[in-house]
Amino acid sequence: MSGGDVRLARAYLSRVAEPPAPALSEFVAECGPVEAARRVRSGDVPGSVANQTSARRGEYRAEEDLAAVEEIGGRLVVPEDDEWPEWPFNALTIAAAHGLRCGLAPLAVWVRGSGDLAALTERSVAVVGSRSATGYGQHVAAEFGFGLAEAGVTVVSGAAYGIDGAAHRGALAAGGPTIAVLACGVDIAYPAGHQGLLERIPRHGLVVSEYPPGCRPARYRFITRNRLIAALGEGTVVVEAGRRSGAKNTAASTSALGRVLMAVPGPVTSSTSSGCHELLRSGEAQPVTSVAEIIESTGRLGVDLVEATRNTEVGLPQGEALRVYEALGLRSGTSAEAISIESGVELSRVRALLPELELIDLAERVDAGWKRSHEGSSRGDT
Amino acid sequence: MSGGDVRLARAYLSRVAEPPAPALSEFVAECGPVEAARRVRSGDVPGSVANQTSARRGEYRAEEDLAAVEEIGGRLVVPEDDEWPEWPFNALTIAAAHGLRCGLAPLAVWVRGSGDLAALTERSVAVVGSRSATGYGQHVAAEFGFGLAEAGVTVVSGAAYGIDGAAHRGALAAGGPTIAVLACGVDIAYPAGHQGLLERIPRHGLVVSEYPPGCRPARYRFITRNRLIAALGEGTVVVEAGRRSGAKNTAASTSALGRVLMAVPGPVTSSTSSGCHELLRSGEAQPVTSVAEIIESTGRLGVDLVEATRNTEVGLPQGEALRVYEALGLRSGTSAEAISIESGVELSRVRALLPELELIDLAERVDAGWKRSHEGSSRGDT
Repeated sequence: MSGGDVRLARAYLSRVAEPPAPALSEFVAECGPVEAARRVRSGDVPGSVANQTSARRGEYRAEEDLAAVEEIGGRLVVPEDDEWPEWPFNALTIAAAHGLRCGLAPLAVWVRGSGDLAALTERSVAVVGSRSATGYGQHVAAEFGFGLAEAGVTVVSGAAYGIDGAAHRGALAAGGPTIAVLACGVDIAYPAGHQGLLERIPRHGLVVSEYPPGCRPARYRFITRNRLIAALGEGTVVVEAGRRSGAKNTAASTSALGRVLMAVPGPVTSSTSSGCHELLRSGEAQPVTSVAEIIESTGRLGVDLVEATRNTEVGLPQGEALRVYEALGLRSGTSAEAISIESGVELSRVRALLPELELIDLAERVDAGWKRSHEGSSRGDT
Repeated sequence: MSGGDVRLARAYLSRVAEPPAPALSEFVAECGPVEAARRVRSGDVPGSVANQTSARRGEYRAEEDLAAVEEIGGRLVVPEDDEWPEWPFNALTIAAAHGLRCGLAPLAVWVRGSGDLAALTERSVAVVGSRSATGYGQHVAAEFGFGLAEAGVTVVSGAAYGIDGAAHRGALAAGGPTIAVLACGVDIAYPAGHQGLLERIPRHGLVVSEYPPGCRPARYRFITRNRLIAALGEGTVVVEAGRRSGAKNTAASTSALGRVLMAVPGPVTSSTSSGCHELLRSGEAQPVTSVAEIIESTGRLGVDLVEATRNTEVGLPQGEALRVYEALGLRSGTSAEAISIESGVELSRVRALLPELELIDLAERVDAGWKRSHEGSSRGDT
């Protein structure tokens, strides 16, 4: 059988059943895509498969669909292709084998853009969140999108208003890469307000969908779509989410697929962060506050980036030396005896410590005794 | 010996050494406060004690100090008193016994106000944070202070500007109770801008300090004071803290003392929340976003557990405590992290439960971490 036959067969199968269709997937695994397509089309299938395919088995538009997607610079990626994201989608197959609702790899994915799907998902993080995001959430999503793309990490999201859009835009501002996974055909601009964004993404990455060209978005398709966002990222960052945000669904899939779930803290007074805080408090997600921490959490080296953000301590004296230093006057001098009583440090120790403090510019000798030096008093304020 | 002698002796001892003074504490434990005071005053003490007392041993002002604090409606609370907070200060003694820097119970505490120190610390939470707090942080601290006080939970803090002040004010707005632990004498208004606040607190709670009247604040005294804030609360909530805020020090003491450490999430764009986020990301603190969550996190489980096991023959812990106990090694020590993984109990809870298991002889600290104590493993283990 030629690759063409396989592509035609899977193009047909991707339209004939509403994903996820476990029985059909199993059937395809058993007798191969070409034979499966032939039998589905002729209705010669087990009952379970018939239930999932009988309604649309007459819808044979494989050639037209492939032509339509090609016209907009797209193609159908099938498991038989080199650019099929083997590992990312494996998690879905495993999950399905364990009866997890978030499971089941797609039969094929329609993609739009020049990037290679397998290559783009080798280092990738999903950034998702509420559509009704705050300025804070959109700012953080854009910053993370930019920083991840700049670090060569593909930003995967759902092209929705709010967090999704901000994450994609941030990645594009850094020249990509970014992947938008849609709940409709890759030829449809949804949401309409993101038409421009969806035109730009293919130039720096890919628009991906398991739905055939012309397929309209529907609520249940967003839920189904979310599992692909979770699967295509090494981890998922929830930037902002209310208690019942769709992002919580992507978060659940992420955990179920064994991917790293991360959440961004926000003001506890903001209801759009309450979903994130729930995930943090339950321990399901780990908090991330920077691109460096996201990279660290998803396990790709980048610990050095985190180190860079850590502060270094200022060398203040410890123990008795600190007590002596604190007992020093700011302007006028204090006698060693008075310092001893104030600090509770033995007079002999005080006499020994004062010159040491002088050496490191924390104390200076004056007529009346000792005082803090100006360098010293300007140091590390606890 | 009369209670008066003991109080005079401890009043003198609280001035003669700069706390924490381990050698002096040990000396007092050995020969009792009255004899210890007499010998310190006459200089007839071991070298280690002399190092801590020789500088001020001539400073005998016990009567004046007691009179001065009485004049402002205060008193000296000593371990021999009923209102000595046995349970809270126990953690300090245990920590000191294991050489933890945050350890060592005070020799006595000067208090100002009508409240009973033991009663006020039976249900209490420390609320701390940055002095350079944002409007957000102060709002949250005030809300938490109000809600905790309203729920009958004493709000413990340090009377500093920023988060501390907001927490105290919130508690006062609910009619208290609240406790301010100072790094100077209870007769000194520090910071000066909080004079009014420090006048109001004694009417609804207590102002507490281990420093004698007239003692001035100093940087190292804030560090020393922080351990008392951590010890007097069942848990500590860090509302806002930069990476190098003093609140990080109180947080460290909280964990070391086996208390529940909590942190409030904030905008990741705010440097005054970065310290909180560090504590959350390291797993040292658990996130709290409401008074209900604070009460849930501090839970009474630990205390209930102790009572339960004291009142039953087979004193086996329940719930999380049981899981932690089961995860303990029989011979060799196990780290808190390993116990957390093994038991599936959150690391911060494990850190809180272990010292409680130790108090009831079910667990013991060893070099490598924690193991079951022999008493513990000999109990009806079914």
